[in-house]
Formats: sequence, structure tokens, C-alpha cells
Amino acid sequence: MATMASLFLKTPGPSQSLPKTHKTHFVLPQNLPLSWRSKYRAGPAAVRIRCGLIEPDGGKLVELIVEEPQRDLKRRQALSLPQIKLLKIDIQWVHVLSEGWASPLKGFIRESEFLQTLHFNSLRLGDGSVVNMSVPIVLAIDDSNKNNISDSSSVALVDDKDNPIAILNDIEIYKHNKEERTARTWGTTAPGLPYAEQAITHAGNWLIGGDLEVIEPIKYHDGLDRFRLSPAELRDEFTRRNADAVFAFQLRNPVHNGHALLMTDTRRRLLEMGYKNPVLLLHPLGGYTKADDVLLEWRMKQHEMVLEDGVLDPETTVVSIFPSPMHYAGPTEVQWHAKARINAGANFYIVGRDPAGMGHPLEKRDLYDADHGKKVLSMAPGLERLNILPFKVAAYDKTQNGMAFFDPSRPQDFLFISGTKMRALAKNKENPPDGFMCPGGWKVLVDYYDSLTPSENGRVPEPVPV
Amino acid sequence: MATMASLFLKTPGPSQSLPKTHKTHFVLPQNLPLSWRSKYRAGPAAVRIRCGLIEPDGGKLVELIVEEPQRDLKRRQALSLPQIKLLKIDIQWVHVLSEGWASPLKGFIRESEFLQTLHFNSLRLGDGSVVNMSVPIVLAIDDSNKNNISDSSSVALVDDKDNPIAILNDIEIYKHNKEERTARTWGTTAPGLPYAEQAITHAGNWLIGGDLEVIEPIKYHDGLDRFRLSPAELRDEFTRRNADAVFAFQLRNPVHNGHALLMTDTRRRLLEMGYKNPVLLLHPLGGYTKADDVLLEWRMKQHEMVLEDGVLDPETTVVSIFPSPMHYAGPTEVQWHAKARINAGANFYIVGRDPAGMGHPLEKRDLYDADHGKKVLSMAPGLERLNILPFKVAAYDKTQNGMAFFDPSRPQDFLFISGTKMRALAKNKENPPDGFMCPGGWKVLVDYYDSLTPSENGRVPEPVPV
Repeated sequence: MATMASLFLKTPGPSQSLPKTHKTHFVLPQNLPLSWRSKYRAGPAAVRIRCGLIEPDGGKLVELIVEEPQRDLKRRQALSLPQIKLLKIDIQWVHVLSEGWASPLKGFIRESEFLQTLHFNSLRLGDGSVVNMSVPIVLAIDDSNKNNISDSSSVALVDDKDNPIAILNDIEIYKHNKEERTARTWGTTAPGLPYAEQAITHAGNWLIGGDLEVIEPIKYHDGLDRFRLSPAELRDEFTRRNADAVFAFQLRNPVHNGHALLMTDTRRRLLEMGYKNPVLLLHPLGGYTKADDVLLEWRMKQHEMVLEDGVLDPETTVVSIFPSPMHYAGPTEVQWHAKARINAGANFYIVGRDPAGMGHPLEKRDLYDADHGKKVLSMAPGLERLNILPFKVAAYDKTQNGMAFFDPSRPQDFLFISGTKMRALAKNKENPPDGFMCPGGWKVLVDYYDSLTPSENGRVPEPVPV
Repeated sequence: MATMASLFLKTPGPSQSLPKTHKTHFVLPQNLPLSWRSKYRAGPAAVRIRCGLIEPDGGKLVELIVEEPQRDLKRRQALSLPQIKLLKIDIQWVHVLSEGWASPLKGFIRESEFLQTLHFNSLRLGDGSVVNMSVPIVLAIDDSNKNNISDSSSVALVDDKDNPIAILNDIEIYKHNKEERTARTWGTTAPGLPYAEQAITHAGNWLIGGDLEVIEPIKYHDGLDRFRLSPAELRDEFTRRNADAVFAFQLRNPVHNGHALLMTDTRRRLLEMGYKNPVLLLHPLGGYTKADDVLLEWRMKQHEMVLEDGVLDPETTVVSIFPSPMHYAGPTEVQWHAKARINAGANFYIVGRDPAGMGHPLEKRDLYDADHGKKVLSMAPGLERLNILPFKVAAYDKTQNGMAFFDPSRPQDFLFISGTKMRALAKNKENPPDGFMCPGGWKVLVDYYDSLTPSENGRVPEPVPV
């Protein structure tokens, strides 16, 4: 990761001192002075209005990390509480909650929020306003956990080495109806949904909700932590760059020139709309992904190459990792992806064909209609403030030897290169047509598949993403 | 049905001429003068504010029945259009839509409404306001229907004898993803859901939405049509009675004294709240029900006996039939049941344990948590105007020989008589404890099971409700 680290070094100090033309796109988490942080917490509205960024859901970015001076106290307190061991995916959700991606949630959801999420994909707040919440952020426990908790109103959440990660207060325990949760979230109960197999099928029969106190920022020590900017840090970065519009692009795949064309074109359109400095948030998902997705580490290398090769403009692009696990829940999940980016300061969201979709686990068809994601997103409660930008279809234009927006008047000139086709080419170390992807980015992809050395039986082992 | 007919005869004329103390509870559809109808259509808000009744969803009661002078024209027009044959359950939905129970829907829903219903249980209107819509009111067609429609923008909906029922205009045809529809509506895809087996599993792979023109009021000619008051007719009846609060009780089972106690107690509470004349809408569901539910005809006889025996006060009770088919979709469906009653003028809704619930088709448990229905209902978007009255638990109090609200301080004094137990007693011609149900009502139930003569193999044939 040497080249990535060197990129970080381009962003040395506090934001205020940086020139506006600063070109780094991989940005360091800003170690903001405490006084500024306090100001942000005390009066976020004033700060945000000054920045021109969209308000977080609920009006205030929720941050659940215990301040440094209290951490030892909280660690000791955790030792005295009933303990719940977190899976890796649970820790990713603690991470998501701790930084306010799910604002105004203050922890794992209780039953009333669970029901609203499943039935309405939204939550009504105390003041009557509605925020989007489509994916239930829950913590499952089993009977023995429940018995162990007894009548305690708080529990300690610990990692696999029993280190305390967080304290969950004012807990509420309620039934985990896995079938209903799955049916209402995915629109199917077919066996083989990756997230369900990872985190639901074998999980406990109870859910525990409550308010989180996260003892210290969640880190993964995988060389990529510095890319994991929190919503507050991203907002700071956008402010530092004087962004007057932020457009988010969620991805979990390598970037090809069709994506790049779309993102460049989006910026052009925003400039035409009168914005002076639209900034792209290129936001690869970093939590749990299914086994055949490209590993985060390699995707980050590929994104870096795309920027180094000049396919995207570093000056107007921020690359950061979105810590959420992936549900592959299509129209339900795309709302979560969009809502979380509002909290990070994005007021435009690019939505593609079949977002967060996958093949049906049992049938030979896509699980979701390719258009439903953008339709549902455009009508979703609590997302009225977000501008939805539907993805224009890009394909390989044989007359120009490059990616271009598909022109239905001359379909014979276009070649569609699917993800499956792209992966097959990379696996076989073949090259795609010139102009499909920058050479540096393509090489990363070929190296990635090369790294998946076939095992003795000749089969490529499946990488395990978490 | 002679006794029922005679009850009707007690309600002779237009509402304006009736004395306010009029005691009939089974009310005739009011054949309102056309001038009044027109006024209602032109300015419903003024009428309703005068009446003190709750506004229909969307501000205006939608009625889709063609006026008499145009009916022949529409019948002829229907002959020239591609035809779609309706099932009995489809006709029930046409009935529901035609009278405005689903206001502001103007017909079978199109895809954008379908997606909002499945994902959000609500629809956003053009003015930004939100109405509840939890159950997708759709019409399924198969490939040959679709091919036959070709590029026509209207279709004729016909009954099994090819009589035109309605014209559907401005049609939109979209995919019928049965698995997703079922999963998101019921929270399960287990085979054996009665409505799914009746109307989804064998239905076509397309849905057709559009605006309905219903050629004449839907009638069933089963001796019960006169009990089927439309929302407009019910609103007129409540106005005639000077109701200042209307509390609706949805049911599809015989009324026992526990129900009666609850309804009487609700009226008492409303009087305590300061209402002068709260009126009960006792509103049995009249559309499709599963095979082991008591047939509508017998339920109506039973309700009549309950009123004749004086268990409920006829002066403050309106009994009418709700024409909707039953989904048995628990927390999803209870929202529909409540929303439709808003359109009929009810501003209070009584919700019981496990509303619209049933046993899981495959597992030995209830499909829904018994408390989820009332919780979901109390949080549902678009139902904020409706007052939800949770059902107090009534049971047989052995110390009083009658039904009473359960007192948790002396559980040993109470006997819970389940629906299964009640049906078993009636089938065996045994009597329940004195005071469980009025004798006339119980006799109807015993007669009903007696009428289900065992067939030659000794098994009681299953009644077919539609």
C-alpha cells in the first residue's frame, strides 16, 4: 500500500491552512481541533449553513464515540456488564452507527423502529418529521445471551477477544422473526441470499436495541483505515474544498471509463445548473460483500490507478470508504445507500441500473427489476431533499474506440461489456477493447485474479471479504 | 332473509325526513336525490365539515360509477375494446374502488403506486401529502390478455358471462413479480396463504393499472346487497344520526359478548371524552374469506340476532358490509382496514389482538406477533388523523358469569374461550358458558355448522366463500 500511503501524505495539516487548489483526492481524516468539534456539536446548523452542505437527517449528525477522557471509565464499566460477543459484521454496524451514517439513530434499533423500517422504510421522529430508514440495523442475540442479560438495562459489546467495543444502554429485547425480516427486506425468502446466510440464518432468535456508547473509533488495521472518513470528516473536507454541490457515487466494483464518463458528465451538468464547484464523492462500500465481489483492498488499488491515470479529476473528487456491510437488497437497500450519503453531506446521488441488485438465488433471472431501484429511490419517504440523478447508459462505442453514452439511433455501433464479461477477461489475462478501462486500472484487476491462486483441485478459491 | 328484509323496511325515506331518534341499525342504502349527490361531488368539503365527519383521504371521496344517462353508451364502448375476464375476487376489488373505499385511487394501481404500496405502505400525492395504502389493489392478466390488448389504451373488464363491468382507461401494463409481492405484503412466501392461492399463484404474470369507469353499481344478488352501503351512503347515515364521532369495528367472526362489552365501553369512553353522539360502525368484511371462516350470510344472521337480543344498542349502531376481500396479511392489512373506514367517515378505529392474522401456513405458530398489528397501525403513514383504540382483552369472568375485561390481579377467575374452542362447541351443538354469547346468536352458529352436512365420506365439506 506504499503508493496509497504516499497519496495520503499530500494532505498534511488542518483544513483551514490548505490552499483551495489542493489536488489530493485521497484525504486524511482531519484531526480537527477539539474546540471546533465542540462548536460543530453545539451548533451544527450554523456551521452547515455556512458550508452550504445539506443538513443531516434529523438536523444533527449523531456521533456516538466516547470522548477520550471518559474512555477508561467506560472500559471499566463494560467489564461489570453482561457481555455480548460481536461478529465482524456487527462491528461494521457499530462503526456505521458510531459515526452518524444512520443519523438520527443512536444505536441498534428497538422494536418500534424495526417495524417502521420493515413496513414503511422510514421513521417518524418526535417532531413529526420523517427520515428514511430502509434496512434494519439490528443486533441479534441468542437465548443464552438473553438469559445472561437478565434484568440489566445495559450490556457490553465485545469483540472476539473480549475487548469491549461499546456499551448498549436502555436496552430492549424483542423477537427476531427471521423469515419476516428477510421477506420484507429482500422481497424473497429464497435460501442463498448472501447477507442472510452471513448474518441472519444462524443468528439468535432475539434482537436487542438500545443507545450506543462506542468506546473508541472503530479501526480495522488493514492499511485502509485512513481512507475511512466519517460523515463529519467528509463534511469538513467538502467545506475545505468550498464545494457548493456534492454528488455521491456508491460502488463496489472496479471503475471503468463508462463510470468515469458518467461522473464527468454529471459534474458538467451541475456546472450548467449554476453550481460553481460540484465535488464528487467516489464512495466504495467497505463492509461485508459477497464472496465473488472484488476485495476492498484491490478495489481501492484500482480506484487509485483510475485517478492517477487522470480518468477522474483529483481536484474535484474525494475517494473514501463507506463502512456499511452490503445487503444486496436492491430497491430497499439503495435507499440506505442514498440516505447515508445525505448524512455525509451529499445532496446529489447517482443511481444506476439495478442498484444493490444481484441474481435470484434460485432462479435464472435478476432478483429485482433493473428500473425499480431508481423508481423506489425517487419516491422514498425522507429522501425528498436529495436530488436523484439516474445513471445514463454508457457502452463501448466502436466508432470512437471508447466508452460513450448509448445512442439508440445507432445501436449497432455499441458493445455492452457486462461485469461477468469483464471478470472473465481479467481472469484470462485478456485485454478489453482499448478505452474500456485505463491500463493501470486494468492491470490491478488482472493482478487481483492472478492473486487468487488456484488450489490443488484447480479451482480458484473464493475470497472471503470479512 | 325475511327478518333482515323487515329490518330494512324500517328505514323508508331520504335522510332529511327521518327523526333523529330513529332506531334502525341495519340501514337501507339511501337513494339520495341526484341534486344532493352532485352537490356532494362538487363540494364535499363543505358538506363534511357541516357533518363533522373526518375528510376522505385525498380530500374528496372518489366515486367511479358511470351516471345513469351514460351507461348505455359505455356498454357499447366496452364491446369495441379488448376484453379482460374478471374473477369474482377482481369484481370485489372493482366494487371497492368504485365506491371510494380506496380514495384517492381512481382504479387498479399502476407501477409507481405498486412500488410505493409494497415499500412504503403509502402513496405520496401530487400536493406532497401522504395517504396510506398498504395492500396493492391490482389486476393480473396473462400473456394472451397482454397480446390481445396490443396498443389499445383502454380495455373492457367483463364478468364470466362476458357482461361488461367496467372500462379501464389510460392503462399501464407492468410485471407481476408474484414472489416479491407476496413477500413484501405477507412477510412470508410460504405456500398456503389463502389469498395468494386464490388470486396470485395462478394469476397472470402481468399487472394492468388504469382509471376505472364502472358501468353500474356492483351487486351480488345474494339477498345481502342492501347491507352493502357505500362510503357516501354511510357518511349520509352518520350525518342523519348526528354522529359527532364514528368508531369502526372490523370483523369477520361471530360477535360474542366480549366484543359487545368492548364496543359498549368504547362508546362510554368517547362520551367521557366529550362527544355527544358516538356511533358504532359494526362492519363485517364481505369479500373473499378463507374456507374455514363462517360464511357472510350466517355471520349477518348472527349479527342481527345480537342486535335483536339487545346486546348492542340499535340506536347508536350501524351494521353494514365492507366489500373488501380478505388478505390475512396482519399488520400490513390492518392498515387497509383502517384506511378504508376513514373514507367511510370513521375517525376512531378499534384494533384487536393479531388483527387480520392467521396461523403460519407451515409452522405451528401465529404468522404475526399478536401486538404488531396495533403497533404498526399506530405508526402508519397517512393514518395520523385516525384515532386508534387498542382492544382491551375480555374474557369469561367465572365470578360474574359473563364477559368482562381481564383483571390481571385475579387471573384464576377468567376463562379464555378461543375461536377454535367456540367453533368446536358450536359444531358439537354444545353450549358455551352462560353469558358468552346471546342465545339467539349462538343458535345461528349451531345452525350454521349443522348446515354443513357431512358428505358421504364423513367429512364436513369446506364452504366456498366466493
